[in-house]
Parts: sequence; structure tokens; C-alpha cells
Amino acid sequence: MSDQRTEISAIGEFGLIEHLTRENETKQAGTLVSVGDDAAVVDHFGKQTVITTDLLLEGIHFDLMYTPLKHLGYKAVVVNLSDVYAMMATPTHITVSIGVSNRFSVEALDEFYEGVYAACEKYNVDLVGGDTSSSLKGFVISVTAVGEVATDKFVTRSGARNNDLICVSGTLGAAYLGLQLLEREKKIFLESPGVQPDLQNRSYIVGRILKPEPRADIVEWLQTEGIVPTSMIDISDGLCSELLHICKNSDVGCTIYEEKLPIHDEARQMAFEFGLDPTACALSGGEDYELLFTIAPSDYEKIVGNEGISVIGHINEPVGGAMLVTKQGNRHKLTAQGWNAFQQ
Amino acid sequence: MSDQRTEISAIGEFGLIEHLTRENETKQAGTLVSVGDDAAVVDHFGKQTVITTDLLLEGIHFDLMYTPLKHLGYKAVVVNLSDVYAMMATPTHITVSIGVSNRFSVEALDEFYEGVYAACEKYNVDLVGGDTSSSLKGFVISVTAVGEVATDKFVTRSGARNNDLICVSGTLGAAYLGLQLLEREKKIFLESPGVQPDLQNRSYIVGRILKPEPRADIVEWLQTEGIVPTSMIDISDGLCSELLHICKNSDVGCTIYEEKLPIHDEARQMAFEFGLDPTACALSGGEDYELLFTIAPSDYEKIVGNEGISVIGHINEPVGGAMLVTKQGNRHKLTAQGWNAFQQ
Repeated sequence: MSDQRTEISAIGEFGLIEHLTRENETKQAGTLVSVGDDAAVVDHFGKQTVITTDLLLEGIHFDLMYTPLKHLGYKAVVVNLSDVYAMMATPTHITVSIGVSNRFSVEALDEFYEGVYAACEKYNVDLVGGDTSSSLKGFVISVTAVGEVATDKFVTRSGARNNDLICVSGTLGAAYLGLQLLEREKKIFLESPGVQPDLQNRSYIVGRILKPEPRADIVEWLQTEGIVPTSMIDISDGLCSELLHICKNSDVGCTIYEEKLPIHDEARQMAFEFGLDPTACALSGGEDYELLFTIAPSDYEKIVGNEGISVIGHINEPVGGAMLVTKQGNRHKLTAQGWNAFQQ
Repeated sequence: MSDQRTEISAIGEFGLIEHLTRENETKQAGTLVSVGDDAAVVDHFGKQTVITTDLLLEGIHFDLMYTPLKHLGYKAVVVNLSDVYAMMATPTHITVSIGVSNRFSVEALDEFYEGVYAACEKYNVDLVGGDTSSSLKGFVISVTAVGEVATDKFVTRSGARNNDLICVSGTLGAAYLGLQLLEREKKIFLESPGVQPDLQNRSYIVGRILKPEPRADIVEWLQTEGIVPTSMIDISDGLCSELLHICKNSDVGCTIYEEKLPIHDEARQMAFEFGLDPTACALSGGEDYELLFTIAPSDYEKIVGNEGISVIGHINEPVGGAMLVTKQGNRHKLTAQGWNAFQQ
């Protein structure tokens, strides 16, 4: 951040909007009207439109003490894009609304929007609207993403069938462990401000919490290979929680295997250092933004070739419930212990 | 509100979502996937999609001391629909995200959503998504509305041409005066809690601030009459501010006449009681949610028949600036003194 500080009040609300969108370029041919009118107009050429939205509040979803504003802007966008990809759709447009107290300068908001635009650039998405407002306290972010998908090619949570294979992209639990590490270093810093944070050899887990990427690549690969998942969801609240969503919405049960859970070495080491069970972190740690999906057994041969996808179990009759088989062969009922915003 | 109080923590985030959407019915044939999946899927049958969003924060945009939660839910939706109508488009879908502290009970949120659903019902709009979160303090609301419009039939702020007539629907300034009245009664109540608020014969102005309606009827009427406005905007920040938006975006000037400004008798009386100039209230008072639009001079004969629309002036060359002609014949430059969220 530069040392210059321009008060938001000095340029006013409309000035702020102009300022923040001055480099906003439209990329989609269908964007007929973008920021600067009452609403955005989008031509979808007969494709189906996908809409999703997220609200992020300071002190609840992020801590500015260890979250750079640019990363925050990037993450606020990609967590929404992740929801669009989880429909097997392609994000095309977003709106971003923010509420900020006078604690924030224009330069600080510039950093935030740098991240927003970086995500738009990377995922070929247009920012087409939003709202800026003052807040009495704290930073409020609301992002809505719209995407498109060929007619009836979207994938919901409710299509998993008996014997389908359960797949997950990437690795699990690292974002949660990255967060634990940042929280520990914050505590140490608050107690002894002279001590530098010790993040050496932790770039993977810290990156997972601060700069997640939606799995556009997995969606593209599935489309290229002609694999149509029977159900799909993105992992924001933790594997267990999302798996139970699929089971409930598809009216099925499932069995997953501890030994199949993809856990990164760095995450495993960090878990041991914290005295945590890596499996528990993989099952219940949130914010991985990986894709969890089910495929017909006949697609197994196609999927095994992709090292970025792990087959972790299978769907069974609802009467079998949702179970984890441990490395020792014990069966445990899966329960959602994911992050619950309303728990004290 | 009933006396029962269920803590949000008692039903959890997913329970809350289920609870709040249990009566949510889809009305649009194009709604393929609604609340309950990662994103909503909407088929627009080749029409163009309109997207708009608003962020409302407690203490900034509303005061729960005199805003019933049901009214707040209704208003949060209709202010977004108003933006869609201001494009000459028809709203079809909304998403609603809320952040609430544990100060709010489930019953309180029920009231809020009663208003949300009432607005959806009245304007034939589907609630298709959202996000619920806890907040450390205060009530946060983010609404996104999506609408559709026949190919290239939308109306922006940038089409006003020299000699076009400037039209406004309904009356101006009443919402601002309603707010002043509520603020006065709040102050009296805080000083002397025994005194009942005196809102007699004030139902029009209080209704204007607490329960605004978007002008769907005006848009429909224009479409029926075959009148295509050259530009259009909804009045949320005050007539002056919106008129200057049209002038800037259309690269034109304008002249409006004080004697033509539509001001309701009740608003005029309230202004006098507060020692305020009714004209100033009409020019700069916000939140009327009326439509401001320009039409070609040739459409004048068609528009005069509608008593709900006032012709208040005309567009002129940019060099003429944006001017108000007073009842005494004096000319004043119009300046936006509307509500500025960032002014101290």
C-alpha cells in the first residue's frame, strides 16, 4: 500500500464508483450495458443463466490482520465462481457490493479491487455492477456471480445414484490448517509484537486459505472427456457437510475410505504439529473450494487417468447411511462438524 | 411479533435456510433450479438478462427503531426491482443475503422474509438464492435482482437528446419528509418514552419512506402505449442527482420548472411545519423510487393523458447546463445535494 491517503469523503460516492471502475473492461460479447447504469444487461444467446451470491463480513469470514486486501478481493470473487463451476456452468458476470467504514482509504479499496479485477481477468468474467456504501463498523462484501450453461447441461446436488463413485479434486484440509497457522501467528504477534511470523515452508497451506482457486480446470477437463457427473458441489464448509448435502438431496447413502482422502504432506505435518488428526481436518475443515462430485461406475476408467482427482468412495442405498471406513477397517457415521456461523 | 423466541444457533445455518425458504414457491416457468443448490439456473428463452444489486446496512440505510422488519424486507426487494424497471425491463428473479447478530431471533427474520415474499408475490418474482451469515453487530442485507427484456428494448441513462421532454412519475420529496417525521418522533420518544408518536394525517409520507412501490405500472403503461423513452432512471438519490446522471451520460443539458414539480399536499404541509422548502425537498430528497425519463417531443400528446406522469422540463444543448427555473422566473444551476453516504 502506498503512503498516500485519500479520504473517501473527498471524492464522494459517485466519484468512488468511477474511481473503482475506471479500468473495468468488458470481455464478454454479451455485455450490452455494464457498470454505470441502473442495471447490467446481458445477452445470453439462448443459454441458461446461473446466479449465485455470497456475503462476507469482517470479523466473521475474514480477519484483516493477516488477510491482504488484494487477496480478499480475489477470494471474494472466486468463492462465488466456485459455486458456478460446481453447477458445471461457466461464470460470465459478477456484481460486487461493499460497505466500508471511514477506517478505509481509497488506496485500501484500490488494493481490494486489484484482487477483484485479477480474478475477473483470470476467469474471463465481467464485473457488471455493484453498490458502495459506508458502514458504521467493519468491511462488508457481497458478491453475486452469474454464469451460463448449455441447455439442461447443469449438474445439481440431487442426481447421485446407488453405486456411483464419489470423487474429489485436489487436496483437503489444507485451508483449515492454514487458518490455524495464521491464527497462531496472530496471537503470538499480539503478545510479542517484535516476533516475526514463522510461515516458512508453509506456503501451500497459507496459499490455500488466502488465495483459493476455483476448479475451472476440472470442469473443463470433465467436459473435454465427455464425463457428466451425476451430482456436484463445491467444498466450502468441509467434505462431510457437502457429502451429507448430496446424500440428502439425492436420497442416498455413501461410504468413503479414510485411506483414500487426499491430504497434502504440508497439511499432514501441520496437523501433527497442532496435535490435530489430519483425517478430521480433511473431513471437516472448510474453505478448500475443491469439487466433490459423483460419476457413474462406467466412467471409472476415464477418471483414473487424472491425478488431480481422487475416488474416495461410493454411493449406497439410503438405509446404509453415510459412513467413513477408517484405515483400521472401523465404520463411523459421518456427521457435519463444519463451520457453523451461528454456533457460539 | 409473537412472544416466542427461537435462537438461530438452535437450528443452525442450514436449518435457518430451510426454515426461511420453506414457503418459497417458484412462479417463473424458467426457474430450473432455485434455492438449495450451489446456484440458481434460469432459462431466459433468448431474452436479455438484467442484473442489479443493493447493499443495505443497519444504521446507514435503515433504523430498526421505526422500521418494521416486514417493511424492511419488502423495501429491500422493491428498491432493486425499481432499478430493473428503470431499464424498461421486467424483474424475474432475486437473491437475498443477510448478516444478522444474535440480537435477532428466528421470528424476527420470519417477519423480514414475510416482507421479502410479499414483494416477490406482488411483482411475480422468484427468490432463487442467497446467503445467511452471522454478523458481529447490526443487520446487513444484500439483494440482487435479475430481469429480462426483449432484445435491445432496454432503456439506459444515455439516450436523452436535445428537445426531449423530461417526465417524472408520481410525486417527489414525500419519502424524505416521511423520514424527517420519523426521526423527529424517534427523538421525542427517546426523550420522553411515554409520549406516543404523532403520525396522524401523515400516512402518505410515512408510507412513502416505509413502503415504497416500484413503478411497474408506469413501465407497463409506456409499453402498452408504444412510448419508448429515450432515457430512464429511477429516483433513489433525489431528482437533481438523477437528472445530472442523465445529463452527464447523455452529454446534454436540461431545464426544469419549479411550478411543474409534482409535490403531494401532505408533503408540502409537512415541509412547512419543518420550515423546509418543499421545492428543495422535491429536488434533493431521496428514496422516492419514482421513474425519471425523457421522451421525444412527438410523444407529448400520448403522455399528457396520464395524470400519474408530470412533464417537468426539457433537454437542451450541453452548453446550457442543467437549470431550474423558479416560479419567479429566476434560473438556478442544479447541483446534486442528494444523500451522500460518505459525507460526515
